[in-house]
Amino acid sequence: MQKQNAIYTDKIGLPPGALVYIGKNRTEKVTISQFEFLKGVYNETELDDFSTCNTKKKSSLVSWIDVNGIHDVTLIEAVGNQFNLDTMVLEDVVNTNHRPKAEEHEDYLFITLKTLKLIESDKDVVIDQVSLLIGQHWLLTLQEEGADTFGTIKERIRSAQGHIPQRKADYLFYRLIDIIVDNYFILTDVLGVAIEELEDKIIAAPDENMHDEIYQLRKKIALIKKAVVPLRDAISTIIKSDNNYISESTKKYFTDVYEHLVHVIEDITTLHETLNDLLNMYMSGLSNKMNEVMKVLTIFAAIFIPLTFIAGVYGMNFKYMPELAQRHGYFVVWGVMIGVAAALLLYFRREKWL
Amino acid sequence: MQKQNAIYTDKIGLPPGALVYIGKNRTEKVTISQFEFLKGVYNETELDDFSTCNTKKKSSLVSWIDVNGIHDVTLIEAVGNQFNLDTMVLEDVVNTNHRPKAEEHEDYLFITLKTLKLIESDKDVVIDQVSLLIGQHWLLTLQEEGADTFGTIKERIRSAQGHIPQRKADYLFYRLIDIIVDNYFILTDVLGVAIEELEDKIIAAPDENMHDEIYQLRKKIALIKKAVVPLRDAISTIIKSDNNYISESTKKYFTDVYEHLVHVIEDITTLHETLNDLLNMYMSGLSNKMNEVMKVLTIFAAIFIPLTFIAGVYGMNFKYMPELAQRHGYFVVWGVMIGVAAALLLYFRREKWL
Amino acid sequence: MQKQNAIYTDKIGLPPGALVYIGKNRTEKVTISQFEFLKGVYNETELDDFSTCNTKKKSSLVSWIDVNGIHDVTLIEAVGNQFNLDTMVLEDVVNTNHRPKAEEHEDYLFITLKTLKLIESDKDVVIDQVSLLIGQHWLLTLQEEGADTFGTIKERIRSAQGHIPQRKADYLFYRLIDIIVDNYFILTDVLGVAIEELEDKIIAAPDENMHDEIYQLRKKIALIKKAVVPLRDAISTIIKSDNNYISESTKKYFTDVYEHLVHVIEDITTLHETLNDLLNMYMSGLSNKMNEVMKVLTIFAAIFIPLTFIAGVYGMNFKYMPELAQRHGYFVVWGVMIGVAAALLLYFRREKWL
Amino acid sequence: MQKQNAIYTDKIGLPPGALVYIGKNRTEKVTISQFEFLKGVYNETELDDFSTCNTKKKSSLVSWIDVNGIHDVTLIEAVGNQFNLDTMVLEDVVNTNHRPKAEEHEDYLFITLKTLKLIESDKDVVIDQVSLLIGQHWLLTLQEEGADTFGTIKERIRSAQGHIPQRKADYLFYRLIDIIVDNYFILTDVLGVAIEELEDKIIAAPDENMHDEIYQLRKKIALIKKAVVPLRDAISTIIKSDNNYISESTKKYFTDVYEHLVHVIEDITTLHETLNDLLNMYMSGLSNKMNEVMKVLTIFAAIFIPLTFIAGVYGMNFKYMPELAQRHGYFVVWGVMIGVAAALLLYFRREKWL
Amino acid sequence: MQKQNAIYTDKIGLPPGALVYIGKNRTEKVTISQFEFLKGVYNETELDDFSTCNTKKKSSLVSWIDVNGIHDVTLIEAVGNQFNLDTMVLEDVVNTNHRPKAEEHEDYLFITLKTLKLIESDKDVVIDQVSLLIGQHWLLTLQEEGADTFGTIKERIRSAQGHIPQRKADYLFYRLIDIIVDNYFILTDVLGVAIEELEDKIIAAPDENMHDEIYQLRKKIALIKKAVVPLRDAISTIIKSDNNYISESTKKYFTDVYEHLVHVIEDITTLHETLNDLLNMYMSGLSNKMNEVMKVLTIFAAIFIPLTFIAGVYGMNFKYMPELAQRHGYFVVWGVMIGVAAALLLYFRREKWL
Repeated sequence: MQKQNAIYTDKIGLPPGALVYIGKNRTEKVTISQFEFLKGVYNETELDDFSTCNTKKKSSLVSWIDVNGIHDVTLIEAVGNQFNLDTMVLEDVVNTNHRPKAEEHEDYLFITLKTLKLIESDKDVVIDQVSLLIGQHWLLTLQEEGADTFGTIKERIRSAQGHIPQRKADYLFYRLIDIIVDNYFILTDVLGVAIEELEDKIIAAPDENMHDEIYQLRKKIALIKKAVVPLRDAISTIIKSDNNYISESTKKYFTDVYEHLVHVIEDITTLHETLNDLLNMYMSGLSNKMNEVMKVLTIFAAIFIPLTFIAGVYGMNFKYMPELAQRHGYFVVWGVMIGVAAALLLYFRREKWL
Repeated sequence: MQKQNAIYTDKIGLPPGALVYIGKNRTEKVTISQFEFLKGVYNETELDDFSTCNTKKKSSLVSWIDVNGIHDVTLIEAVGNQFNLDTMVLEDVVNTNHRPKAEEHEDYLFITLKTLKLIESDKDVVIDQVSLLIGQHWLLTLQEEGADTFGTIKERIRSAQGHIPQRKADYLFYRLIDIIVDNYFILTDVLGVAIEELEDKIIAAPDENMHDEIYQLRKKIALIKKAVVPLRDAISTIIKSDNNYISESTKKYFTDVYEHLVHVIEDITTLHETLNDLLNMYMSGLSNKMNEVMKVLTIFAAIFIPLTFIAGVYGMNFKYMPELAQRHGYFVVWGVMIGVAAALLLYFRREKWL
Repeated sequence: MQKQNAIYTDKIGLPPGALVYIGKNRTEKVTISQFEFLKGVYNETELDDFSTCNTKKKSSLVSWIDVNGIHDVTLIEAVGNQFNLDTMVLEDVVNTNHRPKAEEHEDYLFITLKTLKLIESDKDVVIDQVSLLIGQHWLLTLQEEGADTFGTIKERIRSAQGHIPQRKADYLFYRLIDIIVDNYFILTDVLGVAIEELEDKIIAAPDENMHDEIYQLRKKIALIKKAVVPLRDAISTIIKSDNNYISESTKKYFTDVYEHLVHVIEDITTLHETLNDLLNMYMSGLSNKMNEVMKVLTIFAAIFIPLTFIAGVYGMNFKYMPELAQRHGYFVVWGVMIGVAAALLLYFRREKWL
Repeated sequence: MQKQNAIYTDKIGLPPGALVYIGKNRTEKVTISQFEFLKGVYNETELDDFSTCNTKKKSSLVSWIDVNGIHDVTLIEAVGNQFNLDTMVLEDVVNTNHRPKAEEHEDYLFITLKTLKLIESDKDVVIDQVSLLIGQHWLLTLQEEGADTFGTIKERIRSAQGHIPQRKADYLFYRLIDIIVDNYFILTDVLGVAIEELEDKIIAAPDENMHDEIYQLRKKIALIKKAVVPLRDAISTIIKSDNNYISESTKKYFTDVYEHLVHVIEDITTLHETLNDLLNMYMSGLSNKMNEVMKVLTIFAAIFIPLTFIAGVYGMNFKYMPELAQRHGYFVVWGVMIGVAAALLLYFRREKWL
Repeated sequence: MQKQNAIYTDKIGLPPGALVYIGKNRTEKVTISQFEFLKGVYNETELDDFSTCNTKKKSSLVSWIDVNGIHDVTLIEAVGNQFNLDTMVLEDVVNTNHRPKAEEHEDYLFITLKTLKLIESDKDVVIDQVSLLIGQHWLLTLQEEGADTFGTIKERIRSAQGHIPQRKADYLFYRLIDIIVDNYFILTDVLGVAIEELEDKIIAAPDENMHDEIYQLRKKIALIKKAVVPLRDAISTIIKSDNNYISESTKKYFTDVYEHLVHVIEDITTLHETLNDLLNMYMSGLSNKMNEVMKVLTIFAAIFIPLTFIAGVYGMNFKYMPELAQRHGYFVVWGVMIGVAAALLLYFRREKWL
């Protein structure tokens, strides 16, 4: 968050539509892949430069251009010119902090959303931004990091498997968004498992750093919520959109995506509440532990302090102390001390402290 | 939850309508029973294979096919073909994590919901998914585990008791859903009793593992809430549906079911709040207990530490200590010690610690 | 709650409209009183059997039948036949757990609601169910326990006092509901006073069983809320109802009742928040008390433990301990001990622990 | 609250519109002042009896009748007759517990609201009820206690200052309500200052009776909320009212009053949240204090208990204890004890307890 | 807040539209700058007196008058006369406590909002009020403190850079509001960083004054919320406004501003929740610390108190104590004491206290 802040400051006072990349500093080369396909026909090109991309020619083919890396503002501007995009759309594309939304423009529909990936090694969640633009016969996707989110889809196109190569751009558009939303499910499932594991640990014995774990889980849940809640509205925008490049049958699929998002939101709400419950349990676990510690202290102190006092009494050096001279005085005192200790132990047992 | 997660991952990247069973691993044989009845006529068949099921023929009879076990995806596909069902409906049927919903299709109405059963032995709640599809003269039910939820209804059909054999498929449809919703009431009643028992225990004496009990009760309440809240909307969809196989009189019964669900939701909201109150009470019970322990410690320490000090003073070995030589010194010291102890006891009594 | 549960179970699988009494076990004889009156004319009959009740004859008189006791299901069925009532209405009448609601039927309007009475002796709240049905010239009331809720109204009819004997059934209908709602006000006022008394006690000194008092008050508030919130909607149904037996002028009175209910809801919301505040105050009172106890312990321990140590040093039996031989050693040690104690007392005073 | 309760009970069973004064017992004489004015013309009369008040005659003059004291129910009935008021309006006027509301009747508009005044001496808030009725050329105000809320307005009329004497009754109506709402602002400002002062005290050192202060502030905020929230709706009723005695320009002023109320509600919401935060801070302050106390105890105990043990060891009377006979044994023991104490002090410093 | 309170009191009883400056006492001279520009033409004038400002003449030029300082009520009245403004608008302009709002009047649109600036030195947030009025060809801005919020915009006009000098008053109007909203983002980013830093510190070790930090951050968040939430509605008023001086293309920019505000509100909601989580973590950190302290105390006390007792026993002066005479008695006692200590240490290790 620190870095974006510095960068956001640069933007103050600039006119609307000014392209300023807001995100992590990157220097990787931007890669552009173009897929052209339709019923058997299939073409894949790695574009070096965006000027070599010819989008408008073969109108019968579906053309998918996938741009990996959005920090190169000049290239994004070139893309914008090629596809005749609004500068304010481009501004949203390069702002990786933008909240998910969908907008219908004259010739195309624009949606920006977040991909959430769990890094297995340290259970951290990586958030990336993906923008998708769909028009008549073309689909443009722009990703922050160019991870392999769309890998399985690309494989299916290459191997001409499944429905994608048979259908139009809108079906591909749906499949790409669907795969991102499916990843949210996996994430909530993984978090659910993590919470259940934490629950077992807290029930067994509350530990100091468990609160930190709860806190980290809450932050992840907040992250998902921030990605999913506005996306639901964006999907609803797609469903209600009125144009000739998204068919009614694809919209039915988007209704399914919408339902999935509602489900994810319900799940994370439940997870959030479970975490609250766990926190309360952790806190009362701490109180119980404290009670335990206090009981141990009290039992030791309450038994031995009176005994030490008795021993102290017969350690006094008064000239005239009749008990000291008695033959069995020492053993009587031991008896008294053992009696006192036993009485106290009984008392503590009756109080259920032992 | 762990197992579904693994399975859900398999689904990523698959096209919509791809049938993947999501749920606990099962290997039991799927059983299919067919009931055909109408005013006196009654037929019950155990189907080995779904191809032997002839749904369309005797259109005047009500035909109820009850499938127990939905993990056999091939069979579910056969069912889908036989009844001409949408693949996306089948996808929802085999996903046991799906949230309750109702959908009206051209020839049939589809509802999926949860049955909640309390296992008496360990007070655990078992959740199962039931999907019901109703069309003209037929009713199809698909259950996860094939428990005896519908047992009493089957008995009534067999013995030709009551209204069911006299009426159409929509009345049976209502009765099946009604029996599931009635079970929610029993569950909330049982939870209510469990909470009252816990309440008595917490008022009597807060105990370490009571928080765990509170937590388990909360999870059960969350489970019911998750099953009931979306079901309310689904029932509302049925009431508003417009077709010729659900009669107006049956819709009136569904209004009653809707009201029952509102009642259940109110009840579990109250139970949830009661649990929150109990948790607070438990926490303050712990604090009170700690106060008790601290008081005992303080009383022992505050009384005996000064006395031990006095004894310590006269245990010193100074050559010249005038008190030691005095005839009644020892008894005077005892008097002082008893006086100090009495004064402290009085003080603690005045402070209401005793 | 335990008992209803057992009874509810009996109802599972029964067809809709099956009359099963759900409530406390009762064996009292059901009493039925019939009042017939209109401008001067007045008749009161105790009916032994419902067949002797002739409702339809003298249509110009207002006829009020008050049934005390609803556990006799056969009688309720007879009532239903006499007045031509829907079986689902009767089902709601005999289910004493039903939430308040109003329903307009073709010939009559049905409302079921709760009476709440405070038992002076043990400050407990007794909840009963009353169902009222109003038609052209007749009013039917069915109560669970037949308490004297309607006593004052009956007196007024008998003595031909006030407006009731002058007006139609709808005015009586309003007056009966109004008297129930007025009782809610008294209850919230009594609870308000109880909360203020508890507040004074908690501010004075938090005590162990105060939390139990808070908890009991909360449960009473939850009870009122459960009775009042759905009743508000029921009254709104009456106001919006469209028939010829509830006049516009009576509806204006019901608007007043509606306002009263809004007022009651606001009051109990405030009471609920006050109880939350009291709970917080009680908890911080416990913390303060613990701090007090800890301070006493610390002061005693911190002063006497060092002194005991000093005494212990000069109780050692080393051959060569120069101080022991000194003439004023003993007094010097006393001086040192008094100095240490004084310094510690000063320190604790400066820390404001004394 | 206790007193109203007793009185409310009297009302049970009475017919609607029965005038029963609900409020504090009062015996003061009711005073009635009549102001008649219009452009230069000005008349002020103290009415002994309401029959001498002639409201209808000089229709061109604005007539304001201000009644101070509403416990004389006979007089209120006389007022009602004079102005031809609905008995249910009068019932609301004499119920000082009524929530703020506005109602439009055929010939007049009725609003009842609360004045809140801060008593400087003990920072207590006094709540009073004011009812205003406006018709063509007349304004009737009825107050509980007859405080000087409207004093400045009366002065302005007497001195013919400002706009009031130039305008119609609706402008005066607005000014009277405006002055009451302005007082809410002062109250929230005063509470804001009180909260800030409390905040400084809590940050400095949490004290036992601070929770009581927080609690009292919360009760005041709840009081304001109860007065302001329903008033907002009442003002909205005035703005939407449609009659010929409230002009459009005056309604514009009421829009301003509405905005002020929204502002007050926002302010008290913020104050409420701040108090919650303060309460949390107070609680954690208590915990910190407890930690401090415990640390002091632990440091004293942990240092001196081991030393006392060492001294105890060499106070034993065994015949054969080689150390005792050694020339420098005593000094070596002192060295060991100082070493142990130093090591423990170092440890506590490292743990940042010192 | 204290000062405004005093001032607000002065306003009680004044007629609507009475200009009373409500805000911090100021004596600085008010400065007025006038910018006139259009496509190449550019004029900047410092006005000494408002009468020299001629707004209406050159209608083709865009005229921006920027007033720094609103405490000079006479000058504000002159401004009002010059631009023919409603006195109630002026009243809102000089009330620096007014909540953000927008109002459309016949000839102009009025918006008042808050600028929030972070003072780097002490991380304090300064809140100022800015009012903007836009009409045909003119823009009037009135600021409380005249800080350099609009500095960059003025520079751009002076250097004829960017779009502003090319466009109409509505574009400038948008740019001024946009720059204020952009500052909210910076503020939330800075608060986000502060919260993350605090989080690290709390996870490392909870400290006494951290709660104060949390509290201060919450107050800042409340401040932003109070500025932003009503502003969102105000911007929506601008978007929906219907006039000829705000073009459709500019409204599109305001839609962007609206989205930014939604984003800011989401961000501060997340920050608020994170602070709540941090507070919980801090509280459980305190509990953990207390547990630590208690454990140390208990371990020391539980080990040394029994040992001291043993030493005390053999310090008694009984004539007949057989152990004392034994040759190895002393060493056996040492052995016993070491054994006891070791056993207790083992016990504490098993309990995981060490």
